[in-house]
Amino acid sequence: MPLLTLHRAVVQPGWVDYNNHLNDGYYTVIFSDATTALMAHIGLGPAERAATQHTLFTLEMHTNYLLEVKGGVEVRVDTQLLAYDVKRLHIFHTMHRGDEAEIVATNEQMLMSIDMRGPKGAPWLPPVLGRIDDIWRAQRDLPRHKNAGRSIGLPPKKV
Amino acid sequence: MPLLTLHRAVVQPGWVDYNNHLNDGYYTVIFSDATTALMAHIGLGPAERAATQHTLFTLEMHTNYLLEVKGGVEVRVDTQLLAYDVKRLHIFHTMHRGDEAEIVATNEQMLMSIDMRGPKGAPWLPPVLGRIDDIWRAQRDLPRHKNAGRSIGLPPKKV
Repeated sequence: MPLLTLHRAVVQPGWVDYNNHLNDGYYTVIFSDATTALMAHIGLGPAERAATQHTLFTLEMHTNYLLEVKGGVEVRVDTQLLAYDVKRLHIFHTMHRGDEAEIVATNEQMLMSIDMRGPKGAPWLPPVLGRIDDIWRAQRDLPRHKNAGRSIGLPPKKV
Repeated sequence: MPLLTLHRAVVQPGWVDYNNHLNDGYYTVIFSDATTALMAHIGLGPAERAATQHTLFTLEMHTNYLLEVKGGVEVRVDTQLLAYDVKRLHIFHTMHRGDEAEIVATNEQMLMSIDMRGPKGAPWLPPVLGRIDDIWRAQRDLPRHKNAGRSIGLPPKKV
């Protein structure tokens, strides 16, 4: 199974800096929208959220900026499930121009299942867990990008 | 010396989700604007960028979402310099509501000095490096938040 491609967007005029390059903050807006598309894919779209009072929250994300993207360009986000448990989802998005293979940015996220009646962390609803497990069985053997699990720090000094 | 407070913003209607909570992507837009304010503070504002053809790019950022923020609320970003070298800057932002001490999100960034005539990585210009060093001498003994240097992963399973 390939990666999931659930979100495409055209870089908007309000998203670019003085150089007409996509601003770092708006890469994250696009990645956030890709997670919203993933929510619909696993059964947490607007209607299901209203019916079940369940949703998910982003706990944490890590973005690496690899290449510039100009205003007006269409970008695509591919999504890989790295891991999950009873109430967490660990995912990895890559951003690309159009249908290119080249990665312009990576974005790792940890998401948590939420019962909005708390709000509090809660186990995934059974149909949602079923869809997550479908993705996992299809993607578990895919290679992982080296930026997964990365932490930020200066490189060691050369001696 | 306290942390630097260089940026405040009111959460805009376009930044919130269906629940009137600040969307995860827009926390990052606010943190990005805080880095823009830091650029001006160290001598890389618009006029200096035009005059010197030097700027900085964001290489990487890591955000932790701790508390919700409602639309219309004013937030403040405090900034700490964690480390730097001849062409990199490692910073840590915390977001707060108004003048509260409580942290609603943390954001760690690695930034790189850029000569736009490449564009290519380049040493900090001497006046910029002087201002970075001033911050470093004032902040080097401040405690570090536990999210600095963090990587994303599921917690170990309880046995």
